[in-house]
Amino acid sequence: MKANKVLESIKNYEAGKPIELVVREFGIAPEAVVKLASNENPIGTNPSVMRAIAASAHKAHLYPDDSMYELKEALAVKYGVEENEIIIGAGSDQVLEFISRAFLDEESSVLMTQVTFAMYEIYARQMGAKIVRTPSYEHKTDEFIEAYQKYKPKIVYICTPNNPTGDVISKEDVLKIIEAVDKYTLVVVDGAYMEYAAAKEARHAITPKDILAYPNAIYLGTFSKAYGLGGMRVGYGMANQGLIQTLGKLRPPFNITTLSLLAAIEALKDEQFVTDSIRLHQEQVKRYEAFAEEKKIRYIDSYTNFITFLFDEPFNSTQIANRLLEKGVIIRDLASYGMNAIRITVGTEEQNDIFFEKFSEVTA
Amino acid sequence: MKANKVLESIKNYEAGKPIELVVREFGIAPEAVVKLASNENPIGTNPSVMRAIAASAHKAHLYPDDSMYELKEALAVKYGVEENEIIIGAGSDQVLEFISRAFLDEESSVLMTQVTFAMYEIYARQMGAKIVRTPSYEHKTDEFIEAYQKYKPKIVYICTPNNPTGDVISKEDVLKIIEAVDKYTLVVVDGAYMEYAAAKEARHAITPKDILAYPNAIYLGTFSKAYGLGGMRVGYGMANQGLIQTLGKLRPPFNITTLSLLAAIEALKDEQFVTDSIRLHQEQVKRYEAFAEEKKIRYIDSYTNFITFLFDEPFNSTQIANRLLEKGVIIRDLASYGMNAIRITVGTEEQNDIFFEKFSEVTA
Repeated sequence: MKANKVLESIKNYEAGKPIELVVREFGIAPEAVVKLASNENPIGTNPSVMRAIAASAHKAHLYPDDSMYELKEALAVKYGVEENEIIIGAGSDQVLEFISRAFLDEESSVLMTQVTFAMYEIYARQMGAKIVRTPSYEHKTDEFIEAYQKYKPKIVYICTPNNPTGDVISKEDVLKIIEAVDKYTLVVVDGAYMEYAAAKEARHAITPKDILAYPNAIYLGTFSKAYGLGGMRVGYGMANQGLIQTLGKLRPPFNITTLSLLAAIEALKDEQFVTDSIRLHQEQVKRYEAFAEEKKIRYIDSYTNFITFLFDEPFNSTQIANRLLEKGVIIRDLASYGMNAIRITVGTEEQNDIFFEKFSEVTA
Repeated sequence: MKANKVLESIKNYEAGKPIELVVREFGIAPEAVVKLASNENPIGTNPSVMRAIAASAHKAHLYPDDSMYELKEALAVKYGVEENEIIIGAGSDQVLEFISRAFLDEESSVLMTQVTFAMYEIYARQMGAKIVRTPSYEHKTDEFIEAYQKYKPKIVYICTPNNPTGDVISKEDVLKIIEAVDKYTLVVVDGAYMEYAAAKEARHAITPKDILAYPNAIYLGTFSKAYGLGGMRVGYGMANQGLIQTLGKLRPPFNITTLSLLAAIEALKDEQFVTDSIRLHQEQVKRYEAFAEEKKIRYIDSYTNFITFLFDEPFNSTQIANRLLEKGVIIRDLASYGMNAIRITVGTEEQNDIFFEKFSEVTA
């Protein structure tokens, strides 16, 4: 039997190498591997969430409450929105999938910055949509508005702060872009790392409510980063009720696990963990900036839990990434994004020490 | 902005009511609610899996190994297939979604029995495909072959044992259907409850290997039923490498959680739990049969972990289901499937006692 034609051009997402793989491939002891590749929270899992998971492990045979009533209620209170303005996904990633499948087809196009979250393109390609990118890797308002007017894309993706680069766009500029598009275009504001940017500079703080003011915009958030639950796969989209209902038609039943649901509910009760995560990051990222300056390496000012080093010849990101890997340090090579750069998740003090040491060795 | 037209006709899947909802709606104490609605394993979570989850709760911030190497290896050994003949889904449900999105469009049709797993239709409708059903609620080989020849569907779904009815089709008949279709049609053999059927009668036992012998067939299995991990969302598809690669293009990264992955790996190490689950079921289902016979209620001979009672006037399934709900007993009304019937998950001895008592009360 013949698969749908749109699948022919699809590349699969290349995930950061898991520790298990490095252990297998290079025979390095698991405890010696430092993974700074997937923007996981270096503090680890929130202890109160950990206890809640352990105490509920006996519920693994039970399906979750598919209405996700308690989680939606907690999110609604926190962000000042209504329960029916929220959709829960297996990561905000899955909400991106719903959006793509709800609005795209082979006649449509999508607009995003030159370098941004890979899943926008992958999900758009799954629907056969055309990908249009602005010239710069950062979000530049003029470039977005110009490209919008030229291509009239069905969806505009704004990833702020941006992954995998770490750059940011101000709230004022995001609203400018939303106001520049007409009602036939949906603007997706992906705030997966927003907690870090908001803590750093108020003008970059965007809330779901800011976005809900517009009928053709949706805000995405996640528990994977500042809340430290990457492995549990819980994210959300917030938009007007009509849009949420449409996306809900594509949400499979039980799309997050029973333990993920309770972990997210528990995580929302403990904002101190988020504050601590951000504080650790802010302390440690300064060390990366100092290190880069000392080594005369350019970097992108970080508004996320990672930092991007930009290399110039003769430094080669793939070579550096591979050499680090052999030494048990996993970071993300950005060569596949067309950049001679690496993305490093800012880790704990000890992890970062090891990175500095190994990086110095492989670039000596 | 306008959503894709195919969404207009889509109904959302109606999940079994979770205990939380009954507690909220009827003010019944959680411990007094008996949920026999979602075919969850009445033994509960496997204790060794429970321990593994609790011991790994601190890994909730880490993304899973997206290659799922260890799980695939264990499944490959168990079923005598290759790792690259396996795809892992968030429940076998998600593999159904991949299949639908890979092969269906608005020109295609799908074939299934009159009453079967609701997601076949929902995922097919999401792609705009036409739904064709055989006249009987059970799988009848002649009806399938006749409908196949008439409609030339892109996909034929065989759910054996069948959900939500509990009926079964023999291996011989399944292979007859696969051999009757040409290479342009994919046959999906959904064995979500196969462990129960295989333990009951050898002629109904179908293995992934039986299905892998055909290039245009795929076998689906799950950890949600006999393995007792419904809340963890792990299932799989097994087929030839080419087909698995095609479906893999639609698999999102990290589509199962870190704890789900390790739970499934752990569950595969303990077949005794599956044996015990089946034994409890076989003992307890006899009580339902005796009860039904005593009450002169027709039932479908059960090859699954549930049993279906078929009502005749003046008994009305919706009325009975609602009355049971008010008494804290949740079962599944099959009225939405066009049947005057209820599906009851066979529970523990105590749960079943309560069902018999409450059912007698509401039908007195």
